Amino acid sequence: MRHGSKNENSILKRIFARGADSAQNLPGRAVRLGIGDDAALFRPQRAHETILTCDWFLEGTHFRRDKHSPDAVGWKSLARALSDVAAMGGVPRCFLLSLALPESHTGPWLDAFLGGLRRASRKFACTLAGGDTTRRREILISVTVVGEIRSTRAVLRSGARAGDIIYVTGRLGEAELGLRILMRSKTPPRSSNPLLIKHLYPEPRLAVGQWLAQERLATSMMDLSDGLSSDLARLCAASGVSALVDSALLPVVRPSKAGRGPAFDPLQLALHGGDDYELLFTVRPSRLNMLPKTLHGVPLTAIGRITEQRGLVLLKQAERERQLHPGGWDPFRNTR
Amino acid sequence: MRHGSKNENSILKRIFARGADSAQNLPGRAVRLGIGDDAALFRPQRAHETILTCDWFLEGTHFRRDKHSPDAVGWKSLARALSDVAAMGGVPRCFLLSLALPESHTGPWLDAFLGGLRRASRKFACTLAGGDTTRRREILISVTVVGEIRSTRAVLRSGARAGDIIYVTGRLGEAELGLRILMRSKTPPRSSNPLLIKHLYPEPRLAVGQWLAQERLATSMMDLSDGLSSDLARLCAASGVSALVDSALLPVVRPSKAGRGPAFDPLQLALHGGDDYELLFTVRPSRLNMLPKTLHGVPLTAIGRITEQRGLVLLKQAERERQLHPGGWDPFRNTR
Repeated sequence: MRHGSKNENSILKRIFARGADSAQNLPGRAVRLGIGDDAALFRPQRAHETILTCDWFLEGTHFRRDKHSPDAVGWKSLARALSDVAAMGGVPRCFLLSLALPESHTGPWLDAFLGGLRRASRKFACTLAGGDTTRRREILISVTVVGEIRSTRAVLRSGARAGDIIYVTGRLGEAELGLRILMRSKTPPRSSNPLLIKHLYPEPRLAVGQWLAQERLATSMMDLSDGLSSDLARLCAASGVSALVDSALLPVVRPSKAGRGPAFDPLQLALHGGDDYELLFTVRPSRLNMLPKTLHGVPLTAIGRITEQRGLVLLKQAERERQLHPGGWDPFRNTR
Repeated sequence: MRHGSKNENSILKRIFARGADSAQNLPGRAVRLGIGDDAALFRPQRAHETILTCDWFLEGTHFRRDKHSPDAVGWKSLARALSDVAAMGGVPRCFLLSLALPESHTGPWLDAFLGGLRRASRKFACTLAGGDTTRRREILISVTVVGEIRSTRAVLRSGARAGDIIYVTGRLGEAELGLRILMRSKTPPRSSNPLLIKHLYPEPRLAVGQWLAQERLATSMMDLSDGLSSDLARLCAASGVSALVDSALLPVVRPSKAGRGPAFDPLQLALHGGDDYELLFTVRPSRLNMLPKTLHGVPLTAIGRITEQRGLVLLKQAERERQLHPGGWDPFRNTR
């Protein structure tokens, strides 16, 4: 079966042409050799560790072809992987793109996808270094991001200790609400809606993560991708501690005309809503005076504290404490 | 929709448990932090560059659930990505695994898959450092391999010059013939068949690639994944040269009872057969005396020379020269 002009070589060339200009802006020209050879070559900085992370972004599982614009798919596929670098306190350097596409999507769809990807690549100074393309009935994306951090400075999930105060950046549940707005719209909703922007164009909290790591302020950190109830349980398990969250302190979604619907419950959204890509971190009580209320325009909010028992997450609500079970996104439990 | 016990956390734990033991064997303990945090941390060696490559391995495109054992899928998904590191002359260090599976395959299938993956991981000293899992109707795999090479020693595709002699490792077309045997068998064929082994369990030519890079013998190099006719054209394009291949010199498949069929043509298999994962490289005529006939048990065969025109591949057969068009595997042109 022959398909004429479009082949893997030409698709790789187009991706390279679109990704190449961002390489020029990269400090230190960390990528010596980009797409077009068997592999990419990256020049690590001295006294730094390399951060490695990969993320699926799959049609039907993570986005829908009929609901999500190719521009948003391009942006988000990179942004969500960058969020893992932010969660370590690292600086992104370059990324690899594995892309499978239907033949019908190698024209305008691919161009728009690469447009969104390139804007994210420029904004977060993360160069396209290589990739693999193939043809497929469905759109499949896997992004690997390479970052760096000064040796021993990376903030792990495992460092939380009893007494530490639990913080989050931003507001929780906004992206989930944005997703609901998108899903119930029959026509494309107004793209200026901030809830929709939070869902379609998340901003990894790189500057906040880097500052917390540099100042050695965070004892543990991770990003909120699956929802607070699921992710905080993971942080507690990794650190061998428990957590007590005060529902009154949670930075919940503000009610708005666009977002309110029959199932609008700000607390549930904040506890279980996924895709926020905010940071969850812990700070020793003695260092709280170092933390500003907002950093680079992003609010930092104390939501509870770490306690001694192992692996429990408790929620305090109206003077009562109850166990909070993971209710966030789990691909092996949920179907979206 | 809830599925009870199996969730992403438990699947990641099993993958980690199976992958972790290989981390202990790694020289220098390059991976400081494995699966279980937001990202992995890798310690680069001084005066080395980091090699980065990613490869799709998708059900229906690259393997078939009913034909390929999970053990072979595990082995090959890593081995083919390692071949790109071999093609640069590098040493593999660690890899990231993106895996999407049906719920029905999270039991014995996953165990057997991880078994094959672990054997490849041990044999080629490449540790599982991280990954991402999700549920999916079809089995999707993307592997990112991280390798290292002393700075400036990587062998690129772009270094071939007129007069250089073209070499390949091993025999060409064996894997394609192995695939045909597998496809026409109604029952699983005998696994001791070397052609089948070449298709199911390819061995990346890491030792040969490393030696060629160390000795600075190869002026250009790449791996043969899509077939000589397609891959040599890529090497010529990258180097801005042409190539003349002598059909009489090609290390073609030896006829065997198992492999011979109605469409058995050793020359066509050698020119266009994919998946061999042998190395294609060029050497200056003045340095040919440095090259042994076999290296680490792998034959090295001169098959032609680089010429001056740009971008052409010519095949000499029975004293005639004709242009050789890329006829190997291209996912945007072929359907398997």
